[in-house]
Amino acid sequence: MQNIDLNKKLECFNDHWSPRIIASVNGQEVKLAKFEGAFDWHSHADADEMFLVLDGSFTMEFRDRSVTLSKGQMIVVPKGVEHRPIAEAECSVMLVETAGLVNTGDGEETDRTTSAMWI
Amino acid sequence: MQNIDLNKKLECFNDHWSPRIIASVNGQEVKLAKFEGAFDWHSHADADEMFLVLDGSFTMEFRDRSVTLSKGQMIVVPKGVEHRPIAEAECSVMLVETAGLVNTGDGEETDRTTSAMWI
Repeated sequence: MQNIDLNKKLECFNDHWSPRIIASVNGQEVKLAKFEGAFDWHSHADADEMFLVLDGSFTMEFRDRSVTLSKGQMIVVPKGVEHRPIAEAECSVMLVETAGLVNTGDGEETDRTTSAMWI
Repeated sequence: MQNIDLNKKLECFNDHWSPRIIASVNGQEVKLAKFEGAFDWHSHADADEMFLVLDGSFTMEFRDRSVTLSKGQMIVVPKGVEHRPIAEAECSVMLVETAGLVNTGDGEETDRTTSAMWI
């Protein structure tokens, strides 16, 4: 039951596409991540994913459309839906997703695959 | 799969202590609320509650301490822990909690009791 300061947590890491866990809520993990460039197409068969932009902006690509999100805007990607986030410049994001979720989805592991660690 | 703008959603209501649902994620609801004054002591036996300050500040009182939160700061109140939020001035908050959770907790209903509606 402590004060979790998002900006202070964001200062703890600089790498892109590697979410860090900052809190746990009813089996969900709250994570922070920094996006820059294009991530990989992927989906999560059993988990919705929420993305809230804390700083900057990014575009969530789907197979049939894309949605651009700026600071203070969020989106929920439903389970099973293929998606790919792209950020032209560095973008800080808060995620809410099922505990233990792997960032690259249900396919084969890549060098970007991580299930995140606590900060 | 749409852009949910927190500021636009906050413009949709003005009443205090009456959370509105803006998204659903893996059985959790993401809500917005405006706090002003003191809420009632309560707890939720089966649900953690996350509070992220979007604007302003408030203090989460516990029976043995209190934690003051400003914009960009959050806290998770674990299930079963008695708490009472107090805001000296209006404060906008994002909550993540189990779907259907009642704001006044497990005790008797009051005139502030609501399980929230979608906006």
